[in-house]
Amino acid sequence: MILGHGKTPAQVVGIARELARSGQNVLITRLDADKAREVCKELPTLRYLELSRTGTIEQAAIAPLGTGPVALVSAGTGDLPVAEECAETLRMLGVAVERVYDVGVAGIHRLLHKRDVFERASVVIVVAGMEGALPSVVGGIVAGPVIAVPTSVGYGVSFGGLTALAAMLSSCASGVVVCNIDNGFGAGFAAARILRARERY
Amino acid sequence: MILGHGKTPAQVVGIARELARSGQNVLITRLDADKAREVCKELPTLRYLELSRTGTIEQAAIAPLGTGPVALVSAGTGDLPVAEECAETLRMLGVAVERVYDVGVAGIHRLLHKRDVFERASVVIVVAGMEGALPSVVGGIVAGPVIAVPTSVGYGVSFGGLTALAAMLSSCASGVVVCNIDNGFGAGFAAARILRARERY
Amino acid sequence: MILGHGKTPAQVVGIARELARSGQNVLITRLDADKAREVCKELPTLRYLELSRTGTIEQAAIAPLGTGPVALVSAGTGDLPVAEECAETLRMLGVAVERVYDVGVAGIHRLLHKRDVFERASVVIVVAGMEGALPSVVGGIVAGPVIAVPTSVGYGVSFGGLTALAAMLSSCASGVVVCNIDNGFGAGFAAARILRARERY
Amino acid sequence: MILGHGKTPAQVVGIARELARSGQNVLITRLDADKAREVCKELPTLRYLELSRTGTIEQAAIAPLGTGPVALVSAGTGDLPVAEECAETLRMLGVAVERVYDVGVAGIHRLLHKRDVFERASVVIVVAGMEGALPSVVGGIVAGPVIAVPTSVGYGVSFGGLTALAAMLSSCASGVVVCNIDNGFGAGFAAARILRARERY
Amino acid sequence: MILGHGKTPAQVVGIARELARSGQNVLITRLDADKAREVCKELPTLRYLELSRTGTIEQAAIAPLGTGPVALVSAGTGDLPVAEECAETLRMLGVAVERVYDVGVAGIHRLLHKRDVFERASVVIVVAGMEGALPSVVGGIVAGPVIAVPTSVGYGVSFGGLTALAAMLSSCASGVVVCNIDNGFGAGFAAARILRARERY
Amino acid sequence: MILGHGKTPAQVVGIARELARSGQNVLITRLDADKAREVCKELPTLRYLELSRTGTIEQAAIAPLGTGPVALVSAGTGDLPVAEECAETLRMLGVAVERVYDVGVAGIHRLLHKRDVFERASVVIVVAGMEGALPSVVGGIVAGPVIAVPTSVGYGVSFGGLTALAAMLSSCASGVVVCNIDNGFGAGFAAARILRARERY
Amino acid sequence: MILGHGKTPAQVVGIARELARSGQNVLITRLDADKAREVCKELPTLRYLELSRTGTIEQAAIAPLGTGPVALVSAGTGDLPVAEECAETLRMLGVAVERVYDVGVAGIHRLLHKRDVFERASVVIVVAGMEGALPSVVGGIVAGPVIAVPTSVGYGVSFGGLTALAAMLSSCASGVVVCNIDNGFGAGFAAARILRARERY
Amino acid sequence: MILGHGKTPAQVVGIARELARSGQNVLITRLDADKAREVCKELPTLRYLELSRTGTIEQAAIAPLGTGPVALVSAGTGDLPVAEECAETLRMLGVAVERVYDVGVAGIHRLLHKRDVFERASVVIVVAGMEGALPSVVGGIVAGPVIAVPTSVGYGVSFGGLTALAAMLSSCASGVVVCNIDNGFGAGFAAARILRARERY
Repeated sequence: MILGHGKTPAQVVGIARELARSGQNVLITRLDADKAREVCKELPTLRYLELSRTGTIEQAAIAPLGTGPVALVSAGTGDLPVAEECAETLRMLGVAVERVYDVGVAGIHRLLHKRDVFERASVVIVVAGMEGALPSVVGGIVAGPVIAVPTSVGYGVSFGGLTALAAMLSSCASGVVVCNIDNGFGAGFAAARILRARERY
Repeated sequence: MILGHGKTPAQVVGIARELARSGQNVLITRLDADKAREVCKELPTLRYLELSRTGTIEQAAIAPLGTGPVALVSAGTGDLPVAEECAETLRMLGVAVERVYDVGVAGIHRLLHKRDVFERASVVIVVAGMEGALPSVVGGIVAGPVIAVPTSVGYGVSFGGLTALAAMLSSCASGVVVCNIDNGFGAGFAAARILRARERY
Repeated sequence: MILGHGKTPAQVVGIARELARSGQNVLITRLDADKAREVCKELPTLRYLELSRTGTIEQAAIAPLGTGPVALVSAGTGDLPVAEECAETLRMLGVAVERVYDVGVAGIHRLLHKRDVFERASVVIVVAGMEGALPSVVGGIVAGPVIAVPTSVGYGVSFGGLTALAAMLSSCASGVVVCNIDNGFGAGFAAARILRARERY
Repeated sequence: MILGHGKTPAQVVGIARELARSGQNVLITRLDADKAREVCKELPTLRYLELSRTGTIEQAAIAPLGTGPVALVSAGTGDLPVAEECAETLRMLGVAVERVYDVGVAGIHRLLHKRDVFERASVVIVVAGMEGALPSVVGGIVAGPVIAVPTSVGYGVSFGGLTALAAMLSSCASGVVVCNIDNGFGAGFAAARILRARERY
Repeated sequence: MILGHGKTPAQVVGIARELARSGQNVLITRLDADKAREVCKELPTLRYLELSRTGTIEQAAIAPLGTGPVALVSAGTGDLPVAEECAETLRMLGVAVERVYDVGVAGIHRLLHKRDVFERASVVIVVAGMEGALPSVVGGIVAGPVIAVPTSVGYGVSFGGLTALAAMLSSCASGVVVCNIDNGFGAGFAAARILRARERY
Repeated sequence: MILGHGKTPAQVVGIARELARSGQNVLITRLDADKAREVCKELPTLRYLELSRTGTIEQAAIAPLGTGPVALVSAGTGDLPVAEECAETLRMLGVAVERVYDVGVAGIHRLLHKRDVFERASVVIVVAGMEGALPSVVGGIVAGPVIAVPTSVGYGVSFGGLTALAAMLSSCASGVVVCNIDNGFGAGFAAARILRARERY
Repeated sequence: MILGHGKTPAQVVGIARELARSGQNVLITRLDADKAREVCKELPTLRYLELSRTGTIEQAAIAPLGTGPVALVSAGTGDLPVAEECAETLRMLGVAVERVYDVGVAGIHRLLHKRDVFERASVVIVVAGMEGALPSVVGGIVAGPVIAVPTSVGYGVSFGGLTALAAMLSSCASGVVVCNIDNGFGAGFAAARILRARERY
Repeated sequence: MILGHGKTPAQVVGIARELARSGQNVLITRLDADKAREVCKELPTLRYLELSRTGTIEQAAIAPLGTGPVALVSAGTGDLPVAEECAETLRMLGVAVERVYDVGVAGIHRLLHKRDVFERASVVIVVAGMEGALPSVVGGIVAGPVIAVPTSVGYGVSFGGLTALAAMLSSCASGVVVCNIDNGFGAGFAAARILRARERY
């Protein structure tokens, strides 16, 4: 797994090649479209998704992980890149995903109509920008693990995601845990940590 | 109206006396219990409320303002001082208040059960600390004016109310307006501005 | 109503089409000129205004809202995009607007000469950047509702509008309420909330 | 469960009585010694622990939750109040705890000698102040879920725990999730969410 | 001149004695009442003023400085300690002071009625907390030097004077210069620097 | 005088024309090279200086202001645009300037060799970025007015000029006054305010 | 070595006893006077210094470290506690100290008169609060290692030492290295690291 | 030595020529590729390295400095530009460098395998972004001087290197000293200061 952000195309290609040579599958995150074009020239087997800004090389079968799916909740259109980065991470780790998109707190009934999805989910990941209120509402109606991912969506005092982050950490719903801003990859990986441990016991 | 915070008891007494002498009613806000004791010695007609930290001298009849009541919504026990400062301000300005307390976003159904109150309210004031999510949910179910008041309740990245403030300003519910942290007085006064204008037209 | 910021042209077009199909009028805010060009190719009925960065599709008659006009006050040339976003929002919501532009606190008499406009206004919206002092002065001479909108105009310790925002929230004029930085849309919508409630009683 | 912080002793007693009357066990967190003394006068069955600043009333048997223990890791003496708040929360939720205290990153070998504890843990909670580096090292040697809790231990640019919080959110170890500063209760509750879901599948 | 803040009474006494021994007049600023009591025991000739928190020892005649007086403007009761620290500094430097107190921007006409004072002033010092708007209005009606002093009066997003400071630095009135928060001494000293240079030419 | 920053070329041209028509001289600040090219097409008499990013139209004689020159001190090459904006402002206001460039605190002797310039100056303006230490040293060796201008020169914790600004406001040299970051125009205007008042007495 | 801050007296006593039992010398830093009294009751051999807030138990001879002394420079009276914490740390580590106190940048000549001390020093430690300019000047006249320690001395935008810290990190003098705010201990320890390495080669 | 950042190509060329004319070697840092191309046209003897963004003119022999090499440690690929800026600085100052790259705290064993390099190093420089934990671990296993350099690598609450910086200043390893964000040059220069002093004694 390679964080594309802050690396040159040549550096991404070099690390991806090294990983691929060892037989592993490769997931590159934060790979913007321009950089992806250059990387794809060198790595023709790379599959690039523009919305999630991810590139993948799948050469080994992905073992399924977990029994119930992970519910992936998000509020607005602007949150989709982060939600999809998370979805792609989960897919590469073998975890099934059930998307619950376009459910914001200002339209609370759309969210409440999805309670059945939350009930069958093993983990709920909530992706939200602006005021970051969604995890508090979800945390109040779900008993299992809730992982919150703030996004940089918003302007003014959204502070590039800091307000959503601080709101999630200050949530009045107990036991909601939080990842860095826009870190869809981290949330997916954290869900896999939970499911992995579950398999052991 | 006197902001007690940052003034000595002698200064509060002096300004209150000057106002009272002109026949006006007096409202002192942010008057902590110790200072209130000293002020009451000099102003025996002052009525002090510890929860709202307000002192009042009523010597003139209060003219009623507005037709429907103002709904005053708050989430936790810690928000009560700010909510009650707002209630006392509204009372001194002649505005009827209907309290909707103890309705947090992590228990969304308690809030939704109060929809009838919101419907008959002329203005809804929402007082909340921590992640400050309540105004977003209320703003989604109310068509009239919604005034949000962040409180300094919380710890860590609640930043003394800044997170709630920023969350309210970043609300995904359109047209929610916001006051300074813990400014229950300001929210009450803003509601009175709205009702006052309404009477004119 | 669609927030254009943070969405791709294709996403804006998709949501606008869905709204238009349901017979509603459409208002797109924060649509910069480059993105607007692409959107207009797909939505030829869209009317784009560069100064306010708004696009509109009017297919239904707009019902007038409110009796007195909303006074829209701003200080400098740099504040015009935000003020005009607000004006366009009010127009789409059926609210009459009376503009009071180019009245800064450093030339206090130009502002004071406009008192008659403030007196006949149902709501006063004040748009200001830099030190954000204008709402305090207006709040002192107006009895009705005052909505303050900080703008990101300024440099250095203007902090992209944070100083104006904090100044407005700290205003010594009681009951001034505040929107997010550059949120002309939100201020217009808040005024409509006030006028809407007023019609009901 | 009651957050003692920001409530008066009378308010804490009132809520605790209401919970106790319904037959539940009661856990009060952030109850400082002075307030505890007053609360204990009214609630003689309350058991108060000064180090963790928690008070508990146990009237119902606590059902065990989870198969493996939760490993509770901390670095310095100053982090103990937060770690013990977490431990007491876990105990009240029926979760077994294995403490790994006094293992800081500046003495990396003491930490590495505890690998066997990490291996048999179902969840690892890492409590650390100052530079907050411990979760990164633990996240690199543990495959299961890692919950990081920053503490306000430190001075100067520790910023009351903000540096540790930001360091944990920026961790180079993938999938580490984070709670609010000093939120030992939240970390314990999050671990219980994970174990609870695990029991269902 | 001695900054009392951050020094022990013994340290203040030691430095004051050394200065006094050399025949100079002594001005101690930021001397709170408790510390002043201890200092006065050792320095019986010290004259302490509680409002301005200053102590002075006058043993040499003070030479008058400047021809016109310095106008000292302030808004609220809470700003008086800073304004009076400035007044006492000017007095010790030989500068005449004309006070213009209790003129806030929310009551703009009280300020405008004082234009004659501003016209005969050699320097105008403006002391204000909260939104710090006063220097912008004053700067617009005065042609001579304007020195702004932000105070820590306010709460919430007043940020202990930072908002007033940033507003003053962002002033739309050209050429307003600014001192540190609550630095009445510095403003007085800066005025003296201006008057001193004036005498030379 | 027109602040070019945040205005379109058309807006700059419009305001400049209006000023020019009234017979005044025109000074446009913060006019970057690209915008200047467009403005010059419409205003062929505009004289543009790239280093200071200023444009001027001189159609009236400039009356000299002040007897001694203003000393304009700066440290590094990166500070020159701000220093020269200040110089051009002073020139347009009729004030003589004596430049003392390339004197940083890390080479203290180069600064000390310029004491004679400081002595004959009526006002000293100090322009500095990075740690902003220069005004403290200058303030210690000059008795007349010292105006400090922080610049955005630096990286990392220079915070775009905030560190220099805060350092200048915290200066241990008494009575140093400060302008906004990069505000060479404001410093020049403030010096003119001082000299203007001086002429009156 | 024990950081007293954030530990109870009992915890300090416990750790100190354990260290003393192993035959080591003990240095306790950040031990305020109240806590020290309680600790001294249990550890009668502890020698407490109020100015430096340090307690020491010397039971083993201290081996001298380094050939030249460390020059310890500070500006104001308020910086002495941090400077003396550093001095006591150096003493316990066997390093000779030469104090250069009361040399601020606003009185540059007092500093320049001490050049001979800087020349014979093996390391120069500079302790300064407020604008933190001293290390830049010292770094310009010294060729050897310069360690800067910001102190929390100051008010307003001194931000409890952050301004001095940021100024020192932004220093225009190359290769000045910096410690945390008020960290006199850390600076002394860093000097010892330098001298220790020197002995090896 | 010239800081390229914030200077025009013409300014860089001018200063470089002046230095070169005096016979010195020249090191230009923060010279991005575009600017370098323009500079190279004028200075054909300049050797430019893209990774470290440095340009050098070597015309005099470089005298070796120090006996043991400086160990240069870094964690991720993104930190290489800063590490290499440091390496090039050390080379130009005559100091031998031993690189220990790609050793992050999440893979602690790779770091521990390099202990022999740390043991023979005269100074250890640690370059790290994100959570900035590496210097704490290194400081715990090295007895000599440790200089930490935070990098701006990371996203979200990495805050452009501030989190790494604050973490390094808050390090639980005693006596680690810190440079500004991305200041590889400063760290190299600081190491040279240490080695230079060492040669004298």
